[in-house]
Amino acid sequence: MNGLFSKTNNKEFKEIVQKISKRLNLNPNDLEKGFERKIITKYEYNDKKYLCFKKKLRHIERGTIVFLNDNFDYFCGYPKIKRAMMLKASLDKYFDKKIAIEEKLDGYNIRIIKFEDEILAVTRGGKICPFTTKKVKKYLKTTFLDDYPNLMLCGEMIGLNNPYVNQYYIEAEKDYENLGFYIFDIRERETNIPYSISKKEELFKKYEIPHVKPIIIDKKDISKLWEILNTLNENKKEGVILKDPEMLMEPLKYTTQHTQCNDLSIAFKYTYDIGIDFMFSRIVREGYQSFEMSESKEEELNRAEKLGKSIFLPMIQTIKDVSEGITSKECFELFFESEPDFLEFMNYLKKMHVPIIIESKEIMGKIIKVRICRIYNATTDKIKSHLEGNLW
Amino acid sequence: MNGLFSKTNNKEFKEIVQKISKRLNLNPNDLEKGFERKIITKYEYNDKKYLCFKKKLRHIERGTIVFLNDNFDYFCGYPKIKRAMMLKASLDKYFDKKIAIEEKLDGYNIRIIKFEDEILAVTRGGKICPFTTKKVKKYLKTTFLDDYPNLMLCGEMIGLNNPYVNQYYIEAEKDYENLGFYIFDIRERETNIPYSISKKEELFKKYEIPHVKPIIIDKKDISKLWEILNTLNENKKEGVILKDPEMLMEPLKYTTQHTQCNDLSIAFKYTYDIGIDFMFSRIVREGYQSFEMSESKEEELNRAEKLGKSIFLPMIQTIKDVSEGITSKECFELFFESEPDFLEFMNYLKKMHVPIIIESKEIMGKIIKVRICRIYNATTDKIKSHLEGNLW
Repeated sequence: MNGLFSKTNNKEFKEIVQKISKRLNLNPNDLEKGFERKIITKYEYNDKKYLCFKKKLRHIERGTIVFLNDNFDYFCGYPKIKRAMMLKASLDKYFDKKIAIEEKLDGYNIRIIKFEDEILAVTRGGKICPFTTKKVKKYLKTTFLDDYPNLMLCGEMIGLNNPYVNQYYIEAEKDYENLGFYIFDIRERETNIPYSISKKEELFKKYEIPHVKPIIIDKKDISKLWEILNTLNENKKEGVILKDPEMLMEPLKYTTQHTQCNDLSIAFKYTYDIGIDFMFSRIVREGYQSFEMSESKEEELNRAEKLGKSIFLPMIQTIKDVSEGITSKECFELFFESEPDFLEFMNYLKKMHVPIIIESKEIMGKIIKVRICRIYNATTDKIKSHLEGNLW
Repeated sequence: MNGLFSKTNNKEFKEIVQKISKRLNLNPNDLEKGFERKIITKYEYNDKKYLCFKKKLRHIERGTIVFLNDNFDYFCGYPKIKRAMMLKASLDKYFDKKIAIEEKLDGYNIRIIKFEDEILAVTRGGKICPFTTKKVKKYLKTTFLDDYPNLMLCGEMIGLNNPYVNQYYIEAEKDYENLGFYIFDIRERETNIPYSISKKEELFKKYEIPHVKPIIIDKKDISKLWEILNTLNENKKEGVILKDPEMLMEPLKYTTQHTQCNDLSIAFKYTYDIGIDFMFSRIVREGYQSFEMSESKEEELNRAEKLGKSIFLPMIQTIKDVSEGITSKECFELFFESEPDFLEFMNYLKKMHVPIIIESKEIMGKIIKVRICRIYNATTDKIKSHLEGNLW
């Protein structure tokens, strides 16, 4: 199996490509091109070797992983959820009578799977994350996967103390950390077919799985949805995922003003590291939302002001920081149960080429508390350069 | 000469490439690649055939034009002027003792040249514009070029009634139109070497050429420059060009808050037609300017609010317009002296692939007043699509 990517072992490689392509129902030429163009790469977790689809390739979703065992077991990536810009028009166009509304949590999308008797947590991008895997084992009842190993639990890791998106959630409070898992989909691992809302709810209850609770409304009753969105916005929540109760249509997402502005604050804080497409898309969402809400002149001005502040204030704060010699960075406080757990995760970040520094490490009894910061080099360097007078 | 680009006439093509490459001191292979990659294209004006460099190629500036006469006469493109993000630091870094400050006009960069006894106006991009050429002949004394045919007059076409940037200038008021020319540089057509500030001023006066008036300050006296910038900002002017009085160093530009916000308003009005790099660059300029001005919290909030309004209000207005069936477009009112002049310019726009519609045409005695609108299809189509419920 080790020779899979060695050029000297061309015959074995061809054979494996044949087998995987059959398994995934993907043309072997496309698969080979995927390897060549590094869309598919090989990783390893606890001696389990697997392939990761870094981008969508034909019908194979981004984040799909294929284990390099005899059976080439694979787990589909979580599909991209498209966004409604005009809520009512999109619901009319894409949905039938009823809509299930679920809160969109501001965390990190993960799939929890069982493979060769081990529970594993897979990131959106298709990597087995050692940190998340350990926390899942610690906090989540996974007996469900013992009974249904061909299913995946798709959900969100939330809370202040995770390495991807640190956002405090009161419901994620634990003994010494703020972290939790909320499942929103049950999907067949090979077909990606999701269970209906009623079926998944039944199973969540039976197996005591913490989950996002859907509210079913009539499509005509859109005012109820706007009420929910207003409440979410007031409570600084992210938004909603809208689903067909039978899951026959693809889900949609829609986010609050709070989210748009918060995203922009983060984007302009790391001014030159976050893509400008990210910024632009958040700005225009505000336009459509204001229009759809038929806002008054005063409400429009209010939104314009909030937008301006979200963009401008974090940006000048970063310029001020860099002028004082402070490097632009995003920091996370993480808790590990042991030194090997900590080292394993550091090693994982290194393999993923994430530029980090460890700001502090504190032993708290059996627990290790670490402050890790992701470095934003482009922001720091570019601002420094302009402060020194270099031209654009 | 007509066979220059016909593949059947390879030998003649090679010969011409040799001659031009010698003339421009450019490697013939680079020149050939320029043709292949369509960086260099052929145009025609009044039976004068010329090549246009659409991008900078090695040392040949974008906008350079080469006439296809026996001598391959050429005129260098106007060089890109770099921008200071931090004014003081950039002046310290790039300038010597004295600085000439010139107002940056909000119009359209043109070069006025004399070729084969005819006065021609060349756009920044390197096209001979029939509209501008006619207006130059009408409004500008060009005896200077009779005496110095190897020089170029580089300047700005300003005013409400030009087809590129319509911005009212009181000083551009004419009989029936608002249009004027202000020269800011005299350059040698083949070397692009600019005349010093004192030399150009002397010639401007002697030949009665309307021009931008420089103010010379000591580099240490930057407060004077900030005063000028504040006044320009209050008067809704664009900014300044900073030059070494001897023109030994490259000029720099710096713009006002008014310009940043005004640019953003235009960019977000034509939401999906203007590049997001354009938007991003204007936003960050505001950050550096606020920082360099050491603004108070109140001033920062004020700038944030202005920024937000500049982005948000034009954007929702465009969404509202499109929702009412109004196409996103930018309109210009132009005056022509005759029907052939009008038709010639329409033909020119067609050749340049500018999508336009003629909204109205009015005969005013000997003058024709035409309202021409440039259509922004991406903005109209994309907004329409989202309004219909299509997802992002």
